[in-house]
Amino acid sequence: MKPISVGLVGLGTVAQGTLQVLAKNRQELTRRIGREIEVTHVGARRDRDGVDLSGVRVSRDLMAVATDPEVDVFVELIGGTDYARELIEAAIDSGKHVVTANKALIAEHGNQLFEKAQARGVTIAFEAAVAGGIPVIKAIREGLAANQIQWLAGIINGTGNFILTAMREDGREFADVLAEAQALGYAEADPTFDVEGIDAAHKLAILASIAFGIPLNFDAVYTQGISSIDLDDIDFAEELGYRIKHLGIARRTDAGVELRVHPTLIADTELLANVNGVMNAVQIYGDAVGSTLLNGSGAGSLPTASAVVADLVDVARALTVDPTNRVPHLAFQPNHLNDLPILPIEATRCPFYVRLLVRDEVGVLADITRVLADHRVSLESVIQKEGVEGEAVALILLTHSVVERDLRAALSQIEAFAAVVGEPVVLRVETLGAVL
Amino acid sequence: MKPISVGLVGLGTVAQGTLQVLAKNRQELTRRIGREIEVTHVGARRDRDGVDLSGVRVSRDLMAVATDPEVDVFVELIGGTDYARELIEAAIDSGKHVVTANKALIAEHGNQLFEKAQARGVTIAFEAAVAGGIPVIKAIREGLAANQIQWLAGIINGTGNFILTAMREDGREFADVLAEAQALGYAEADPTFDVEGIDAAHKLAILASIAFGIPLNFDAVYTQGISSIDLDDIDFAEELGYRIKHLGIARRTDAGVELRVHPTLIADTELLANVNGVMNAVQIYGDAVGSTLLNGSGAGSLPTASAVVADLVDVARALTVDPTNRVPHLAFQPNHLNDLPILPIEATRCPFYVRLLVRDEVGVLADITRVLADHRVSLESVIQKEGVEGEAVALILLTHSVVERDLRAALSQIEAFAAVVGEPVVLRVETLGAVL
Repeated sequence: MKPISVGLVGLGTVAQGTLQVLAKNRQELTRRIGREIEVTHVGARRDRDGVDLSGVRVSRDLMAVATDPEVDVFVELIGGTDYARELIEAAIDSGKHVVTANKALIAEHGNQLFEKAQARGVTIAFEAAVAGGIPVIKAIREGLAANQIQWLAGIINGTGNFILTAMREDGREFADVLAEAQALGYAEADPTFDVEGIDAAHKLAILASIAFGIPLNFDAVYTQGISSIDLDDIDFAEELGYRIKHLGIARRTDAGVELRVHPTLIADTELLANVNGVMNAVQIYGDAVGSTLLNGSGAGSLPTASAVVADLVDVARALTVDPTNRVPHLAFQPNHLNDLPILPIEATRCPFYVRLLVRDEVGVLADITRVLADHRVSLESVIQKEGVEGEAVALILLTHSVVERDLRAALSQIEAFAAVVGEPVVLRVETLGAVL
Repeated sequence: MKPISVGLVGLGTVAQGTLQVLAKNRQELTRRIGREIEVTHVGARRDRDGVDLSGVRVSRDLMAVATDPEVDVFVELIGGTDYARELIEAAIDSGKHVVTANKALIAEHGNQLFEKAQARGVTIAFEAAVAGGIPVIKAIREGLAANQIQWLAGIINGTGNFILTAMREDGREFADVLAEAQALGYAEADPTFDVEGIDAAHKLAILASIAFGIPLNFDAVYTQGISSIDLDDIDFAEELGYRIKHLGIARRTDAGVELRVHPTLIADTELLANVNGVMNAVQIYGDAVGSTLLNGSGAGSLPTASAVVADLVDVARALTVDPTNRVPHLAFQPNHLNDLPILPIEATRCPFYVRLLVRDEVGVLADITRVLADHRVSLESVIQKEGVEGEAVALILLTHSVVERDLRAALSQIEAFAAVVGEPVVLRVETLGAVL
């Protein structure tokens, strides 16, 4: 069979890894798919040192790659949502399949892009957009296709996990560890996307859609970062047998779908609590399989390239498939997507960790617990830290599962107490049930 | 599109789970694949209480299902290697695709069956044969297709893992825990397949073939069970920071492929060391992705059914694929399989744990270490347990990585020493590098 002709735009970390994997494992790949994958056209706005493109057509105009009639599959690795979208639309218009690692683009414009691809009979593959080299899209969309997926929870941003791990293990402050992560190249100069949870929210939107068969809904993801996590709370959590992890959580409930990215207390015996450093992991609960977990490198040149090239292999194999029999972009047939509502965060339900600073006065604990009870918030445990008499001390509350708006209502009354100093720290708690 | 017509033989645990999943998630499955999966013909040699087969044709003669011209996909869930093989061959002859959970059959006769299926243009899907509901076949064969897989290591027998976990956690002897596992239904009345490693060897043979693209080679798997594991060694290992797990290990080396199932010491910080009870996990190392791990339920009615039904979905989608573009049975094109030699266990290389019982005499340690050095065996640590003077004490040696035949040669000399009592306990040690 004739080689698959690949046009690739971008020459950054992932693109270089992709070229490297295609070159190094050329023979292995041919033995797998029975034909060669050949990069015939590369689009890059400038040269890069150390990237050998001999024998490959190189264009400064990336659109020339997207519309090159000799190209079968268009690989978009430039990132960003505007020009990347234009390029992919042009590639689709010229009948090419697309492979992309662009989580922001898929999360924000995937619905339109998939519709366009569908109409043109081509496919957009995006395994590399979530959790790097871990084949989690394939696992959910195909490997667990027998299941009604109930929920998933993941550590899907390596930078955030690196920071939280170092804070806990070394007792260092957020800003200090962030600076180290930037020096190591784990965090961008502008770390907002990683530490404020936007990157994780992009990935969660994608995972939730393929798990539940709902349209992509990035705007509806509740997103809270880790930049305000205090070392005290990491320590208090540890004392209680919990670790704080930055999780993306998607859950199907009778009322609708919960979509939320936030720092989360999970028991230190949970598998996810023990995924440390830059590693990623996604735990998925399906009604037949029960709980299953995938762990590995969520970012980096070669791990992400592993997913890009696996998508190329899939696309190469799908070239002769009747388009109606391909794996649908969002796991379910486009005319059979669910219209489950996305719940606002106030309507979601989980246990909470609350840290209050209170002056140690007679009756204050009674007042606080009465307000909580009035709002149907029951407590699993209350810990009052030792303090100097008359000075404010930390009061740690662990609630049972409660609807968030009830807790918030109670806390707004509690904040108004004269004995309560400052604002409460509120963190969500989850029980995932895959334990060591 | 018209429904996929499924003929299924067997009405045991997995078959009942499969019928249950197909019924419960019928709508969800149709939304995924755009057509219905309909079980039209069931073959069972006797009725089963509580299994509703109303509206389904039932045959006592299983061959009637395998050859039913109305059936598109034949699902074999009777187990065993003789009649199951006949049935599958008949199904292939009548042009049906096949789904099976039969690890023994695939491991022992897969080469012939795949060749036959290939010639007839049909496919045999076998995700359920390894690690139950964990989509590990799909992950290796497709999700990690970009990689040259270097090695994999797995806890692929839940019964064995349950027993070793209980021995360590509760300090109970093997026979005692085995009896409990049998009472709980985790172990068969004849537990040989599970505790002597044969079941794991079947699964390892399959995993190694799809990882390296080598023919199935069950007979070449070195297989050692857990029935002779002593509580003392679990304790000594724990003191040294290790746990004993029953692992299947496949590794590609310059000299050939290592294929071995045996109790293994791994550091207690390794992820695999912390996979407990009946859970399964497989860790895979690819040259691009690095280390990745999949964890979940490796057995049971619904988890295994999850894999059977996922295979049905895959087959349904593949019905219109040009056969040459399907995912090959062993991940590589049949005419491009590797002829890497399988190494005999004596030629494999790893660190070892050795427990000797020695009488505490002057010079005995010097004699032992000299013999080891003569055979190029260097030691990482030596621990002599406290004992009563003049009586035999345990001497624990941890070696550096060494070729097995060198260690065995040294030990046969050491055994002959007058001060050495009985036979040494020898266990292999592995470093997998996915740590907590």
